[in-house]
Amino acid sequence: MTNRQVILARRPVGVPKASHFEMAETAVPSPGAGQMLVKLSHWSVDPAMRGWANDAPNYLPPVPLGAPMRAFGVGEVVASRLEGYAEGDVVEGMFGWQDYAVSDGSEVNRKVTETDLPRSYALGILGLNGMTAYFGLTETCAARPGDTLVVSTAAGSVGSAVGQIGKLLGCRTVGIAGGAAKVRQCLDEFGFDAAIDYKAQDVAAAVGEAAPEGVDCYFDNTSGAISDAVMTRLARGARICICGTAAITEWSPLPMGPRVHRQLLVARARMTGLIVFDYADRYGEARAALAGWLRDGRLRVREHVLQGPEAAMGAIEMLYSGANTGKLIVEV
Amino acid sequence: MTNRQVILARRPVGVPKASHFEMAETAVPSPGAGQMLVKLSHWSVDPAMRGWANDAPNYLPPVPLGAPMRAFGVGEVVASRLEGYAEGDVVEGMFGWQDYAVSDGSEVNRKVTETDLPRSYALGILGLNGMTAYFGLTETCAARPGDTLVVSTAAGSVGSAVGQIGKLLGCRTVGIAGGAAKVRQCLDEFGFDAAIDYKAQDVAAAVGEAAPEGVDCYFDNTSGAISDAVMTRLARGARICICGTAAITEWSPLPMGPRVHRQLLVARARMTGLIVFDYADRYGEARAALAGWLRDGRLRVREHVLQGPEAAMGAIEMLYSGANTGKLIVEV
Repeated sequence: MTNRQVILARRPVGVPKASHFEMAETAVPSPGAGQMLVKLSHWSVDPAMRGWANDAPNYLPPVPLGAPMRAFGVGEVVASRLEGYAEGDVVEGMFGWQDYAVSDGSEVNRKVTETDLPRSYALGILGLNGMTAYFGLTETCAARPGDTLVVSTAAGSVGSAVGQIGKLLGCRTVGIAGGAAKVRQCLDEFGFDAAIDYKAQDVAAAVGEAAPEGVDCYFDNTSGAISDAVMTRLARGARICICGTAAITEWSPLPMGPRVHRQLLVARARMTGLIVFDYADRYGEARAALAGWLRDGRLRVREHVLQGPEAAMGAIEMLYSGANTGKLIVEV
Repeated sequence: MTNRQVILARRPVGVPKASHFEMAETAVPSPGAGQMLVKLSHWSVDPAMRGWANDAPNYLPPVPLGAPMRAFGVGEVVASRLEGYAEGDVVEGMFGWQDYAVSDGSEVNRKVTETDLPRSYALGILGLNGMTAYFGLTETCAARPGDTLVVSTAAGSVGSAVGQIGKLLGCRTVGIAGGAAKVRQCLDEFGFDAAIDYKAQDVAAAVGEAAPEGVDCYFDNTSGAISDAVMTRLARGARICICGTAAITEWSPLPMGPRVHRQLLVARARMTGLIVFDYADRYGEARAALAGWLRDGRLRVREHVLQGPEAAMGAIEMLYSGANTGKLIVEV
């Protein structure tokens, strides 16, 4: 029995590619007193990993060269000398890209209790993606029945959840995504009322057509040109959630864009930044709602599952090239 | 008895200057059935008058050439055949730049009941300026005790009220104004804890020094470079009120500026446009609070009073060159 690991072998500048990683095998560790051993079944691949791999100031120190890549994962406790955790418990946490992780509990985000649902959901719709979609829409956007909701990266793991939850809340939903396949997915799989291909269409004109009375809620994952286009179509009292800025690669010095001041003024609109961790004490509420909709079949999840540990090496790059369709997961 | 009027004689492009106006005299009109005659004592001079004088789409049609300039004013009812209004009532409304106005009541904003306070206050601190300051600060900025509040155009009629109300609410107040005289006025007259001269200082650095823990509330009347500088100093959870955009002269096409998305995201900040008319049903509440503070001597008002009707002709220009110190009023 060995512990396969995907280690960060070279320091990337920008997006980590397969060439920055190497496979390693070590002995499976034994948990000491106050520790447990977790056997991971699924690893997560998240945009934040770019920042963790780079040698730049961040909210966490850079991943050391030679160490397993830092990542969220879900797995089963296979041995425990840690109070509160028993063999067979399913846990989700920051266990890294490896088969087995020893933990004193500090890496654990939570015990996964929705064992009737696919376990990998703990990394997406029941994890930070779902929390982000839920609170960004209900709190930051304050979405109400009858609102017209526009979502960028609408076929992505967060955006697709935002669109579906918006629909469940009674909104008219308009998704923006790149390419005909993702637009189809928005319409057929995630039930958007309209979908716009930003690679092929004039986004401002298309939003104007899809939202003739203006945009009440805009859930933005992009910043950049897509955001600029949507901002020209605000309804009075619009609420904009700034959740991510995927279209902007460099923030220092600040990139220029059209000033939003007058758009916000004329529409009496509000633009608010969302960091989902601020809602940590309400995750349970969101998870209960999301799990309910998943069980009812009213919320659909698209996962892009890579097989085997080697596939993880090129996975972060896939996120940034848009090659994934759905939440990117590595099944170990 | 004649009715002196300041009429719009030529159509301005941009800021109306003295040369666009002419004096006229007509007979004092007689109120018909359902009308009253108001004798104006004070005329208001407001930035919005630029838009009213220009031949451009606006929320009101352009002032016709040859007509008295549209303006707010306050005066006394001297004859009434209109139910609800009696001789001696003091009324504030859109009566135009003239000695006497006939009104069927539709021009009236309200009866002025704070007759113990200077009547001209109805055009400023107890009018839209005060309403804007009060709701922008308490609602849009949601100012709380202990907040650090930054105000641009801090020596102006709105900004000086925002700073003083902020102080009364328990905020630490930082004013931004142009020139040493206005900075002195901010400190000595309006009680700001700190004041910054944007013409002489590096605004970002000065805000950083005056607000070392970051800016919780920013009441912005400028947009442009001052706003860009303050945005680099946001505290977590900051609230920005976009009240005016005095620093930007042309919005079509949209002028470029540093993107605010990441600043809003990292600070979980919120930027909201304020149109004071949205609070019309709560003006009474604001007016009661403001009048109370005025009577207590806890709220100071600086008026810049021009004498006689001729002085009105160059008054709008003064607003845009910053030549006025305090709320600009014409005493008829």
